[in-house]
Amino acid sequence: MTTTTTTAEDRLAKVGIHLPDAPPPFGAYVPAVQTGNLLFLSRMLATSGHTATVVGIVGKALDVKAGREAAHTAALNVLALTKKQLGSFNRVSPVRLGVYVAAAAGLTEHPKVADAASELLRDVFGDQTVSSRLVFGVASPPLGSPVDLEVIFEVKP
Amino acid sequence: MTTTTTTAEDRLAKVGIHLPDAPPPFGAYVPAVQTGNLLFLSRMLATSGHTATVVGIVGKALDVKAGREAAHTAALNVLALTKKQLGSFNRVSPVRLGVYVAAAAGLTEHPKVADAASELLRDVFGDQTVSSRLVFGVASPPLGSPVDLEVIFEVKP
Amino acid sequence: MTTTTTTAEDRLAKVGIHLPDAPPPFGAYVPAVQTGNLLFLSRMLATSGHTATVVGIVGKALDVKAGREAAHTAALNVLALTKKQLGSFNRVSPVRLGVYVAAAAGLTEHPKVADAASELLRDVFGDQTVSSRLVFGVASPPLGSPVDLEVIFEVKP
Repeated sequence: MTTTTTTAEDRLAKVGIHLPDAPPPFGAYVPAVQTGNLLFLSRMLATSGHTATVVGIVGKALDVKAGREAAHTAALNVLALTKKQLGSFNRVSPVRLGVYVAAAAGLTEHPKVADAASELLRDVFGDQTVSSRLVFGVASPPLGSPVDLEVIFEVKP
Repeated sequence: MTTTTTTAEDRLAKVGIHLPDAPPPFGAYVPAVQTGNLLFLSRMLATSGHTATVVGIVGKALDVKAGREAAHTAALNVLALTKKQLGSFNRVSPVRLGVYVAAAAGLTEHPKVADAASELLRDVFGDQTVSSRLVFGVASPPLGSPVDLEVIFEVKP
Repeated sequence: MTTTTTTAEDRLAKVGIHLPDAPPPFGAYVPAVQTGNLLFLSRMLATSGHTATVVGIVGKALDVKAGREAAHTAALNVLALTKKQLGSFNRVSPVRLGVYVAAAAGLTEHPKVADAASELLRDVFGDQTVSSRLVFGVASPPLGSPVDLEVIFEVKP
């Protein structure tokens, strides 16, 4: 008997993405906490390990395209951390995605930056489990990262 | 037998508010996600459809009164979206309200701005179900909206 | 029969901390809302009652050390509020800690500021129940407080 169900693992393989190592915490906290069916992730930045892959403010030194690349990098860290925490993507779906952009005061295109993170999650978790979203421009994410991601997942029993 | 229980629907009718159409998403996300008894709404702005009804920074171009009007408009969108998602207000109560204000660096009156959103929710959901609240000034909400609202509701079975 | 289980109350006594009075709300919201096993606290500032104990931007008027003191003060308010809400710390563990720092645009040391709050919670709730964390620099917390804390606790039945 064959099944045609496509899993998050299948989709990840299809997209051909190589996940980085999950970034270690930067301080006195843990990468994620599960309570009941909710998994709260610590914020993920556009980093490789403890080093920012890109630094700057979207709308100043960085354009929207560079902001999108930072959001994509941070979302890869979200995937890496989730895989490390749960061993698999198959039981999780994103509930809330917060995208906090280091943004010049005049920036209005936050949704385009945030979409780079949303699109990666959608590619992996599927069209049926797209998250709600919270987006705004902040004065400064840690380490100068242009993007700071918050994620809450639902974990199915 | 008559009942004297006042519902959220009753209170909404009493306040005489006409709800706008729920704003469509601005990107690759959905308006709300329910997990268990929690409903996570995507952020609501001071918009009509995809257009900001007012643009500016509270403490610069906008005074506290204009900020309050923006918070009220965004809270109307919260109500419209919730009604669209659940069909009714009668099974929900607000758990968390986040009010993120586009604020000049020197602004200290964020609570007054935020109260305009809190007061509308209280008028509809009642004194017994007032939310917890998170408020701070951000560099820039999307579209130049002066206020960005985050809401988590409890949905009763 | 003796038990060697160390409770949060024991650890608080050991640290020798005197909790302040829980700060009253600044507007039309309540200090905390519990839904299921989750307790959502309203944001806590570096205040005593309704007065900021320190005002300023970390990286401008305030250095990282002063930012850490503000984070510690705000975390004391978190403890005071939690104690007031639940009567005891023994059934709770922190799930999410958000640390929103009034930060100069160039600041990168947010994690050091945030650690002052994380460390106090860890001292009280223990190494086994450290929270996930979300940190970024904001334009302005209310009242000019350098730090604005968001906390979600798990409440054990």
